[in-house]
Amino acid sequence: MSKRKLARGVAVVGAGMSQFGVFPQKTTRDLFVEAFQELRASVDKGLEPNDIEALYIGNYSSELFEGQGHTAPIMADWVGLTPRPATRIEDACASSGVALRQGVLAIASGAYDMVLVGGIEKMNNLPIAAVTEVLATAGDMLYEIPAGFTFPGFYATMATAYMHRYGAVPEALMQVAKKNHDNGALNPKAQFNSTIADVMAAKQRSAEKRGRPIPTWDNEMAFLHDDRANPLIAWPLRLFDCSPVTDGATAVLLVSEAIAKQYTDDPVYIIGSGQASDGALHDRPDLTTLGAAKQASQMAYEMAGVTPADIKIAEVHDCFTIAEIIATEDLGFFAPGTGHEAAEEGLTARHGTKPINTSGGLKAKGHPVGASGTGQAVEIFKQMRGHADARQVARDVDLALTHNVGGIGQTAVVHIYERR
Amino acid sequence: MSKRKLARGVAVVGAGMSQFGVFPQKTTRDLFVEAFQELRASVDKGLEPNDIEALYIGNYSSELFEGQGHTAPIMADWVGLTPRPATRIEDACASSGVALRQGVLAIASGAYDMVLVGGIEKMNNLPIAAVTEVLATAGDMLYEIPAGFTFPGFYATMATAYMHRYGAVPEALMQVAKKNHDNGALNPKAQFNSTIADVMAAKQRSAEKRGRPIPTWDNEMAFLHDDRANPLIAWPLRLFDCSPVTDGATAVLLVSEAIAKQYTDDPVYIIGSGQASDGALHDRPDLTTLGAAKQASQMAYEMAGVTPADIKIAEVHDCFTIAEIIATEDLGFFAPGTGHEAAEEGLTARHGTKPINTSGGLKAKGHPVGASGTGQAVEIFKQMRGHADARQVARDVDLALTHNVGGIGQTAVVHIYERR
Repeated sequence: MSKRKLARGVAVVGAGMSQFGVFPQKTTRDLFVEAFQELRASVDKGLEPNDIEALYIGNYSSELFEGQGHTAPIMADWVGLTPRPATRIEDACASSGVALRQGVLAIASGAYDMVLVGGIEKMNNLPIAAVTEVLATAGDMLYEIPAGFTFPGFYATMATAYMHRYGAVPEALMQVAKKNHDNGALNPKAQFNSTIADVMAAKQRSAEKRGRPIPTWDNEMAFLHDDRANPLIAWPLRLFDCSPVTDGATAVLLVSEAIAKQYTDDPVYIIGSGQASDGALHDRPDLTTLGAAKQASQMAYEMAGVTPADIKIAEVHDCFTIAEIIATEDLGFFAPGTGHEAAEEGLTARHGTKPINTSGGLKAKGHPVGASGTGQAVEIFKQMRGHADARQVARDVDLALTHNVGGIGQTAVVHIYERR
Repeated sequence: MSKRKLARGVAVVGAGMSQFGVFPQKTTRDLFVEAFQELRASVDKGLEPNDIEALYIGNYSSELFEGQGHTAPIMADWVGLTPRPATRIEDACASSGVALRQGVLAIASGAYDMVLVGGIEKMNNLPIAAVTEVLATAGDMLYEIPAGFTFPGFYATMATAYMHRYGAVPEALMQVAKKNHDNGALNPKAQFNSTIADVMAAKQRSAEKRGRPIPTWDNEMAFLHDDRANPLIAWPLRLFDCSPVTDGATAVLLVSEAIAKQYTDDPVYIIGSGQASDGALHDRPDLTTLGAAKQASQMAYEMAGVTPADIKIAEVHDCFTIAEIIATEDLGFFAPGTGHEAAEEGLTARHGTKPINTSGGLKAKGHPVGASGTGQAVEIFKQMRGHADARQVARDVDLALTHNVGGIGQTAVVHIYERR
């Protein structure tokens, strides 16, 4: 079913994101306007907003986070797009990755030539325990949540199974955290715009300021091993294995391939798109892989006619560090059971052979859940066009990939991008 | 932008719905399976579920109603569709009408040949006051809800403005309720499978049984004028002007036009689709019309190449009786300000010149909000193919229309169907 080509080609010609972080004084509307403004400025030959024909907005749960449902037309209104069609897409943390796919399909259908795809989530209105409960609604409320599962527990279960089968050690997870903080430190929009060394120094300054004993660590790995500095959340996952609770908005501008050059001489084409679903975690035969991610990537690779080896960089869904390791296997970058070694060997670092999450990933850039999927596309758009500033990879990126997961892989969506 | 044709044609070849009503013992999963089973049986030449390539599911808020987010892959799992892509669409009460449009666009794009589109809502888990609050989240939580608005208030505001401008009387609203109950009485799946006369008789039996004075009314209109039998909710809207709180699920099966005849000799083609958005009610220049509904219908008419006069029957979004009257004007069936006269004259009755809501509408069939849009398509599929049993209209229905509204018209979506 997936080998079919789309009726029309699609390109990205603009992208933007709000600052990611904790913004008690901002609403979702403010954040989306901020993302749209950066997007508008990114369109090389200019954007007349009236040319936008539809809005798809990924959002996990503005109902539970903010008490606001029916959020798509509100976003359309606040960036001046009414009466254009405005549609919210929800697939948990894959919401805006799936919204991106709907934008691609909508243009391919012939209904539109230009579609704005956005993602939004304002999570910090609630206390942290309530956020955890809201996120847990992406599990199975009949069979899993009543048993006490929340998301750190789900991914800790996968991490335990993975370590047991493949002999992986916690240091592999820590290397993912360290790498993504290294990248996030170079991303001014990131929630954690800091290396682990920066975090260590901040903790030392804070202790000094408060007249407490100043902690010392031999190096970043020693810090990550320190139970007080990096406490256990759900074994083997510690605080720095978990993505943060983030307010943020992201947006990309899609056009039909035929008109892409009207907006920029340097469009990024979406040549592959795949999406798949899966049952709940308790019902799966294998806890060391996400079947939906494998299916979605296979669909995308087939549509694009490329292989995992062809992909130069990727943004993958590292809601927890273990998720990044498993993602790099599900996508075919590394053989099953070897992703942890690749992480430890630095292959996925910004100057490694397969740079992963140059943006800082969900881990350091931040994870406003419904906005993370389009956020990945924003990074790819910048990297492919050489606009990633201090974190720009030192290679020509002709092919790139995004991998966005909902829940514990009940949804996965993969896109492949080409620069010609 | 809307005059463009889709790249490929789309047809409906199957449709089904669960019983609508109040089902404390059923989950959303049960209801969706029930709808899918009726759909499966409706496919004349048989359906192999493995041929379904994607699921779009309209749902307003399983998070708030049931504490379950990420509901699309769960629905896919329970009807055996994993690992197929499963996507939830949310646009308040227009969720499944918009899901239908995404299904149409997805097939037109070339990505799929067969798509299942469903709608689900399980509203009766919560007490009624909480349901009203959940529905209110489809208004504007910054500007409207803090002022005390809930949905009966929003539509009462429109009704008041409409009556003031056009001299409409409450009896016009009552005629809509009476008509839709007449139709619902002939629909075994309806929540209110009863005429107003049936309701009157039931109240009399109940009083007799409890040894109380037996109330009498001269006729159905006298009953609807009785403040005790039909109490005011928000002037001028009374209880019988409001759609009920409903548990239900609906589904339609879409295929590319090229393969439709493999599934039935009598497909129903979707030849027009339109969707539009609008700002919140407080921000509109005119409270007697829904601009988004006019825009969406214009888009659908242009795509289909037909006019309002060509449409033989329509299911419109009668969440409140006033909404049906305004809908018949926004769709161009009657001139602005004359819809109330058409209702009073019986033009919209099942054997009138323009039958509206032969299913009983949201008013009598029930309004499981996220399921109502595809529910409208289910009725049209049955009527066009002559399978509507006791409520079958006495005419050849070559062209029909559905009109589905989200919130107070921040979203509207219109589809036009053809039987060849």
